[in-house]
Amino acid sequence: MKIAIAQLNPTIGDLVGNAQNILAAAQQAIAQDAHLLMTTELSLCGYPPRDLLMQPAFLAAMATALEQLAHDLPPQLAVLVGTVLPNAQAAYDGEKPLFNTIAVLQNGAVQRYFHKRLLPTYDVFDEDRYFQPGSESTFFELDGLRVGVTICEDLWNDEGFWGKRSYAANPIADLDRQAVDFVINLSASPYSVGKQRLREAMLQHSAVRYGQPILYANQVGGNDDLIFDGNSFGLNRQGELMFRASSFATDLVVVTFDDAKRDLVMQPEAIAPSPETTDAEIWAALVLGVRDYVRKCGFKQVVLGLSGGVDSALVAAIATAAIGAENVLGVLMPSPYSSDHSVSDALQLAENLGIKTQILPIATAMHAFDDTFAELFAGTDFGIAEENLQSRIRGTLLMAISNKFGHLLISTGNKSEIAVGYCTLYGDMNGGLGAIADVPKTRVYSICHWLNERMKDEGGRMKAKGDRVLPDNILTKPPSAELKPGQVDQDSLPPYDVLDDILNRFIQAHQSPAEIVAAGHDPAIVNQIMRLVTRAEFKRKQAAPGLKITDRAFGTGWRMPIASRWLPGTSSVARSPRTP
Amino acid sequence: MKIAIAQLNPTIGDLVGNAQNILAAAQQAIAQDAHLLMTTELSLCGYPPRDLLMQPAFLAAMATALEQLAHDLPPQLAVLVGTVLPNAQAAYDGEKPLFNTIAVLQNGAVQRYFHKRLLPTYDVFDEDRYFQPGSESTFFELDGLRVGVTICEDLWNDEGFWGKRSYAANPIADLDRQAVDFVINLSASPYSVGKQRLREAMLQHSAVRYGQPILYANQVGGNDDLIFDGNSFGLNRQGELMFRASSFATDLVVVTFDDAKRDLVMQPEAIAPSPETTDAEIWAALVLGVRDYVRKCGFKQVVLGLSGGVDSALVAAIATAAIGAENVLGVLMPSPYSSDHSVSDALQLAENLGIKTQILPIATAMHAFDDTFAELFAGTDFGIAEENLQSRIRGTLLMAISNKFGHLLISTGNKSEIAVGYCTLYGDMNGGLGAIADVPKTRVYSICHWLNERMKDEGGRMKAKGDRVLPDNILTKPPSAELKPGQVDQDSLPPYDVLDDILNRFIQAHQSPAEIVAAGHDPAIVNQIMRLVTRAEFKRKQAAPGLKITDRAFGTGWRMPIASRWLPGTSSVARSPRTP
Repeated sequence: MKIAIAQLNPTIGDLVGNAQNILAAAQQAIAQDAHLLMTTELSLCGYPPRDLLMQPAFLAAMATALEQLAHDLPPQLAVLVGTVLPNAQAAYDGEKPLFNTIAVLQNGAVQRYFHKRLLPTYDVFDEDRYFQPGSESTFFELDGLRVGVTICEDLWNDEGFWGKRSYAANPIADLDRQAVDFVINLSASPYSVGKQRLREAMLQHSAVRYGQPILYANQVGGNDDLIFDGNSFGLNRQGELMFRASSFATDLVVVTFDDAKRDLVMQPEAIAPSPETTDAEIWAALVLGVRDYVRKCGFKQVVLGLSGGVDSALVAAIATAAIGAENVLGVLMPSPYSSDHSVSDALQLAENLGIKTQILPIATAMHAFDDTFAELFAGTDFGIAEENLQSRIRGTLLMAISNKFGHLLISTGNKSEIAVGYCTLYGDMNGGLGAIADVPKTRVYSICHWLNERMKDEGGRMKAKGDRVLPDNILTKPPSAELKPGQVDQDSLPPYDVLDDILNRFIQAHQSPAEIVAAGHDPAIVNQIMRLVTRAEFKRKQAAPGLKITDRAFGTGWRMPIASRWLPGTSSVARSPRTP
Repeated sequence: MKIAIAQLNPTIGDLVGNAQNILAAAQQAIAQDAHLLMTTELSLCGYPPRDLLMQPAFLAAMATALEQLAHDLPPQLAVLVGTVLPNAQAAYDGEKPLFNTIAVLQNGAVQRYFHKRLLPTYDVFDEDRYFQPGSESTFFELDGLRVGVTICEDLWNDEGFWGKRSYAANPIADLDRQAVDFVINLSASPYSVGKQRLREAMLQHSAVRYGQPILYANQVGGNDDLIFDGNSFGLNRQGELMFRASSFATDLVVVTFDDAKRDLVMQPEAIAPSPETTDAEIWAALVLGVRDYVRKCGFKQVVLGLSGGVDSALVAAIATAAIGAENVLGVLMPSPYSSDHSVSDALQLAENLGIKTQILPIATAMHAFDDTFAELFAGTDFGIAEENLQSRIRGTLLMAISNKFGHLLISTGNKSEIAVGYCTLYGDMNGGLGAIADVPKTRVYSICHWLNERMKDEGGRMKAKGDRVLPDNILTKPPSAELKPGQVDQDSLPPYDVLDDILNRFIQAHQSPAEIVAAGHDPAIVNQIMRLVTRAEFKRKQAAPGLKITDRAFGTGWRMPIASRWLPGTSSVARSPRTP
């Protein structure tokens, strides 16, 4: 039997558009003799639909769209579509109102429903908010084969792999007892660094343990902060990789299940290459994330501030790769404190990338604010108020351009500075999307170096002067906010390799300050960073959505109180007043 | 037996401070011969601790603090403390890692634990993210009485009252079968309009149905967007109200349980008065919410923009009541488009309230931006970019004052304008807290009128010129953003009574556009509002925390996709590009 996997990029709530894409995939599947078409989790509405699920009209429209889709699809093809189904028993049994469901569409109608059983509630996931877990795992028959059905998290509970259980049930074990011929999984599994290696290792373990071929179809595309990487794949019953679809791109793959051998067959040239390095992988993720956010929000062009620093350089390159140089406007906003090279480096970058630029010096506006505050601020020292003013003038200039020309403003802050609050609310934090908000500063540098090397290898797909798209000086000069004369980031912060290691241990690994110190860090620096991270919570609360590339990003999966007295490493500490 | 109810105001994460308040309550309880002291849900760490629960060091500190508290408390008193307990079986059984627990402290040690069973995941609640539901409801014995223990949501599942079940289990039914003498409930139930009437009606139903006296202790105080109203109360087995603690203030109440009659006894003068009107209730909630956010974040003073309009007038009055006129700075920022009365009305208001003012005209900064944009914007019309610029200049001025003097900026936007996006991101939306972000415009007016009447009755606790604290002109002139000559809100929006009714039906009642039209609204207006609400999602994503007073606020309980194509009332609509 031939099976098609449609790795689609749905837009949240675009029921008609998503259905059209499923229909187009079905035509391709039929043309290649497939009998079964897999799509991905909630493929009809896109994942995650979030509180749209609380609008009865949305649920009604989804039911109508599913019926229409069943009618429109080629009748002979069995198509698996992810949708939402009301739980009719909810009010009687005290259950959640909906199921996260796969509908089997064939012969013009819905033939069956399968409900997701394991509902994630960690990190960015809120599935218990909407869904009742399914009570059983089972299969449908097609061409005499038993197809065991699971949805995303259903396959993430192999205690042999994890060394622990996260849920009481284990759907693949239940399916194995029903002697299914293979197990399919429709997923919407968000990207994080190295996630695909984890998925393949995990499902390989399950395939071998249960002797089950596994077909895994994953959503692709960016939806707000979440990037879905695709990377759909299949394993035979020995756990060997039989195919892998594209990463970070839509794809349609048709694979063969050998009915006689009862196993998935190796597909010729069917293993799409993975990004060669972590830097390449993150780059591809961010390019997709920016492209889809711009597109799905209805924008065509973006604007960003070009400071001559490494963060805005990387974001400009990402935006250029995502939507084309002709759609990117870089704005240079030098101040009297800006170094000469800040403008020349930014202009060189823009020339290399081929993007448009605009120079808007901020001295005039700075003087206007100085005049306005002359009396009120008389006798006070230059300080954080004056530094932030410059950043807020720039943020205001960028938003005026956004408003005037309909460009989406992309924010250029990195994860390290957002973690410690080394950024200005309503200033450089302005923007509709934080392109590198989950990328630590050390990783920003390594992606930039990788990018320059790749451009050299490829002869520069972006217009590069010489052999580097990002000018050397941007990568070698000391990072600086340039908000007062001679300022560099390391006046206020430890070196970024130290900072990023401390942040990674605290944020990703949930280590205590004591453990971080035991790993070799200076206690005074650790305490300083703990204080900064805790005090910056109010800034993060108002940050733009930031593209998520780690297991613990400052976004929908970071839910911290603001008015709190907890400071890690102490039992209770009164905090000094702070100013936003 | 005498029972003390400590209606405390914990600060999130302040383990030492919260324990001290429990100790002080225990001393008062002992002095009044109480044998049992109830506190509230998670009273040791405050509710909600959110992702602090993911820091192992926080959990360890809580365990230590609980042990210390048990040691420090008077040994003869049984004290119920809300805390978090690790679930030792989690990894083996596939369960969540923690329990939301009540510890019974007596004789210097923890005697028992009771786990919360019904874990809310709707609205602002994420309890499944952290907690495993307890598997049983049971009691402890004290003075020969069986005390049935429940935590908050455990009592919110009486299908006789609700007409449906929200959970499979019903703890009070389980306790009734164990012949308990009375049922206690330790809560952290956030305020919304009319919530206390709902609580009393619901528990009255349960008390009568099961013939059980119920003692309900609720947290008080503001924690970020959530306001807890206290209003702890007790019902006898006939469901009659035997006492009610203060609303919106800490309290300690000692009540008598008659061992012979096996019922709660009516307490003389123990029913604290409730706010007389909805306006009075909301006012009290907002004053508490502002006071606690300012205090718990470590601020002493606040700053806000005074436009001469009704929103900032109400917020100034709230701030004055919350932290004192001497701690409130109102900033007037007139533009060339401002009406004469905008300054005179604001100054009159400030005089009535007794708050400080500062006048900072924005024309100088406007001209500076005009100069900066002279070339780039040449030939374009005055529009949304220029309007927003004024708002962003004001937002920047306010933040500079906040940074310079350490004042918390309070944002003054109301729910109606935040719903339709009639507000400027990085402009008037600036601030650490949205004081009236969940208050519809029509309610803003009614609270203002109530406030003026109250001032008259009380002879003006705030300094009022004449008999009104809010000048008449502020309440009678047409609302206007004053961002272009002659502009009024109703140029862009339907009248606020129409707008608020549509918004209420859509947001609170989850009505579809068709249902709203059926209720008598103009279809064109309904469609306009649906579009505006949907398109403003990106602004709300970056809004300050807003004090929640309704069942559906734009805060932690509003989780909407941004890059979405769903427009209520249609199955799928392509949206036009939009500009933040």
